[in-house]
This record gives sequence, structure tokens and C-alpha cells, in this order.
Amino acid sequence: MEIVSRIAALRERLAGHTQTAFVPTMGNLHEGHLELVRIARRHGRPVVVSIFVNPLQFGPQEDFATYPRTFDEDCAKLRALDVDVVFAPEIDEMYPVPQGFLVEPPRLGQILEGEFRPGFFRGVATVVLKLFNIVQPCWAVFGKKDYQQLLVVREMVRQFNLPIEIIAGETVRAPDGLALSSRNGYLSPAERAEAPRLYATLRWLAQALAEGERDFRGLERRAQESLDKAGWRVDYVALQQRTSLEPAQAGERELVALAAARLGNTRLIDNVEITLPG
Amino acid sequence: MEIVSRIAALRERLAGHTQTAFVPTMGNLHEGHLELVRIARRHGRPVVVSIFVNPLQFGPQEDFATYPRTFDEDCAKLRALDVDVVFAPEIDEMYPVPQGFLVEPPRLGQILEGEFRPGFFRGVATVVLKLFNIVQPCWAVFGKKDYQQLLVVREMVRQFNLPIEIIAGETVRAPDGLALSSRNGYLSPAERAEAPRLYATLRWLAQALAEGERDFRGLERRAQESLDKAGWRVDYVALQQRTSLEPAQAGERELVALAAARLGNTRLIDNVEITLPG
Repeated sequence: MEIVSRIAALRERLAGHTQTAFVPTMGNLHEGHLELVRIARRHGRPVVVSIFVNPLQFGPQEDFATYPRTFDEDCAKLRALDVDVVFAPEIDEMYPVPQGFLVEPPRLGQILEGEFRPGFFRGVATVVLKLFNIVQPCWAVFGKKDYQQLLVVREMVRQFNLPIEIIAGETVRAPDGLALSSRNGYLSPAERAEAPRLYATLRWLAQALAEGERDFRGLERRAQESLDKAGWRVDYVALQQRTSLEPAQAGERELVALAAARLGNTRLIDNVEITLPG
Repeated sequence: MEIVSRIAALRERLAGHTQTAFVPTMGNLHEGHLELVRIARRHGRPVVVSIFVNPLQFGPQEDFATYPRTFDEDCAKLRALDVDVVFAPEIDEMYPVPQGFLVEPPRLGQILEGEFRPGFFRGVATVVLKLFNIVQPCWAVFGKKDYQQLLVVREMVRQFNLPIEIIAGETVRAPDGLALSSRNGYLSPAERAEAPRLYATLRWLAQALAEGERDFRGLERRAQESLDKAGWRVDYVALQQRTSLEPAQAGERELVALAAARLGNTRLIDNVEITLPG
């Protein structure tokens, strides 16, 4: 496994390859990331994993400085999966001048996470475009855990005519249901014990729909209230149409329930895809 | 020469080619465009020329509807130059859904032309990024006539890490000095007779600098006044630093004088690069 920190060296290493499979990450790799790497390996070779904590997608009050950085452990995990190249650039390599050209996402990137993290998807879309142009993959794999991000990237690829196929990886969960996330490491033992309620609440919402409940807005409200009562500070619980992420309307069947909420200082997100019977 | 209107067909035609040279145009080709094509031919093969009048870069009060479209004549000229592929997509092919993802340029795209044509460089940068992703050229050629556009595209390529080299083509002029432009066709005979004054004024400014004049802002003012007096409505005459396009300051040597002004309903632009002695 080669570890490359320079763009020019990476281009040289990848020159002539047309079947590159790519997994962009911010490091601190857990089983969710590793599953994305396994998916990448089934699609093409070489497999390239980037590790870059992208300052452009963090708000001024967010956790850029404290985001967990575990480079050596990450590389050991990737080596065990027979990854070909780790691309781990310094900030100055990705942003040698202040990034003036930005990808401005449409409404899809301004709702939900975009509303609570202004500029987040602008930062994500911009760095992903840069990484795509550097790696020039044939496939890129993103996890469904960050569901809106997956859709934003997929739509950017479509609207910018990038010759890349975006592959979705399922969310990997702890045995108690908590979606794996680097930010889980911020949780105290008591918060960690409480954290599975986020997924459980989304499962409850899906179950209510399976049993015939159709008051979408009422379900969102009750889900939010149950999190409120358990001490969470909820940003949103939203039952949305699955590709536009607009609020689900009566008669629509391909849905996704998304939630973002804080436990103490830690903000967690999760989602569940729901298909209603026809 | 192949004429291709579909993105998928173009990708198929260009598959495997790594030395593609590309000239994006809006058609209505004149000797200025043809010079860019000749430059492209010296760089690589196949040579691809796109003809697409991009609605995204026209303001609501601008000349999108009346912009001259001369497709058959354009193709005859390109065939004579041994161009390999003309890419001429319909609007729906380039914009199958309303373009929600946009490239937002930095200050470089907001001053000068950007100030008088809000959204212009956003539209240019977005369509150029799309065309680059479709054609995947190794080289792309842009004319210095649209000097700020050349710099915006070059800086976008740099900041988005696109693996493309941007080549600049010199402005081609009529014998009386008028820079060739599709919009020259809008001029009445009287306006056409007056039009060379734009370039003459920039040459006068360059000459004054060559003779030792160093009052940059005073020169801009006098140039503007002489155009005003001749019946032009001037948007700007600006003596700028050559790569940032910020106002030239004392001691700087690599300059460019840029002007935009209207004769009747026709808006013309031009520029002259100026190097001061050290």
C-alpha cells in the first residue's frame, strides 16, 4: 500500500488507470468506512482511499480542530484490506491559495443539514469535486449514513457531467443500533447508552408507517417529542421524499426518515429508508 | 469531420483518447475562433470544437435570443481546418434539469465584466466545467479577446485541480484594429466606422505609459472621457494588474488595460497587455 501526500505524485501513480475505485474519507476509520472500501474493491482497481479533514466544510463553531485524527491506525486498517493507495494531503496541498471557486449546491444542499450547517454542502461539494479531479475515479463510494451528502454528491456528478458512478454503501451499526460515526467517540458513557434512541425513534416511525399510519407531519412531531423528553436537542426529524429530500406528501411511497439531534455537545445524524406498500 | 449532438455519443467517440485539444465556442465563427482552432491542432488530436450558445451566461436583458447562429457556415469553416469533432448539443442536452449546481467564482469573476454582467462568469464557469467533464481534454484554448474569461477559466482549472492546460490565443483584429467579435455584426455602418476607437484608445493609453506617464487613474479617466465625447457609453476603462485584474498600483509592471463600452445597443470589449520597463 502506497501512502501519497502530493497531488502530482498521486497523478503519476494513477496515470493510465481507467478503473480506479475511490473512497473519500476524513479518517478515524470505523467498520462503516471499511465496508465502503470493500465495495470499492468489488468495483475496480486500484482502490484509492483519501484521508483529509476538510476545513472548508466545518462551520466556525464546529469541531474541525478536535475532529479525531488517527492516521497510523487508519493506515493499518486499510493495509489489511489490501487498499492500493492512501491519499493523505496536507491542507496546503489541497488549498494552496484560499479556495475562491466554490461549488454552490441547489436547494437539495440548503435544507435539513444545510439549514443547520450553513456552508456545509458547499464545502463538501467543493472538496469532493477537487478530489474527483485529482483521483479521476471510475467509481466513488459514499455511505448512506450521510444520506443527504450521498444525494448531493450524486446530483453534483449528474449536473456537472462528471464521468463517475456514485455507489452507495449501507450504514453499519453497533449491535444496539447506533450508526457508526467518528463523532460517537465524543459521547460520554451515559450519552453512549442513550445514543441508540435516535435510530430506535426512526425505526418506531417506520413501524408506525408499516402499520398504516399516514399523518406524516404528526409522526415527525411525535418522534421529535420523544427525543426531546429523553434530553436530546433535536435539529430535525423529517419524513422526506427519497431523492429530492422534500417533505413527503400523501401518496408518495419512496421515503426516507432523517434525524439530527444533539446529546450534550455531540451532534448525531441517522436515517432509515422506508418504502410504503402500493 | 463528425458532428455530434449527444453527450453519450461524444464520450463514445472520445473514449481512450488522452491528447484531446478542445476549443469551446458559441458559434458564429470568425478568424479569431479559427486561430484558436489552429492552436489546438498544434497541441493535440482529436481536435474538438463545441458550438453552444449557453443561456446560463446571458442576463435577462441580454442578447441570448438574438445572438447570431450560423451553424452550417461554422461547420464549413471547421471542416476546412480539419477539425475532428464538432460538439453541438441542444440546450436540453446540456441542461436536462434546471442547473442547480453552480460554480461560484471569487472576486476575479465579480469585478469588471462581472460587475456589469452579474452572473456572467458564474454561467461561463459552470458551462465550461460541464464541457470539460464531457470532453475531458488535455488542452483547451481560449482567446485573449475575452481576457477576464481566460483568467477566470485558468484559475478555476487551478483551484478545482482539473487536469487540463489552458492555452491563450491572441486577439485577431480587423485591419483598422477592431477586435473580431460576433457582436460586431450588430453594428450599423456608422457604428462600425466608429468602433475602432475602442482599441485606439487602449493603444493611446499604452503609448502614454511607454512615454513615462504613471498616473494610472488619470489615464483611465482621460481614456474614458475621449470615448464619452465620441458618443460611447463606457462601462469601464481600467488599468489592472495582469493576473489578479486588481487596479494597477505604482511599481507594478505586468499590466493590462481593459475596456467595455456601448455604441448604440452594441456592447464591445477589448484589452491590451502592457509591460512597463523595469
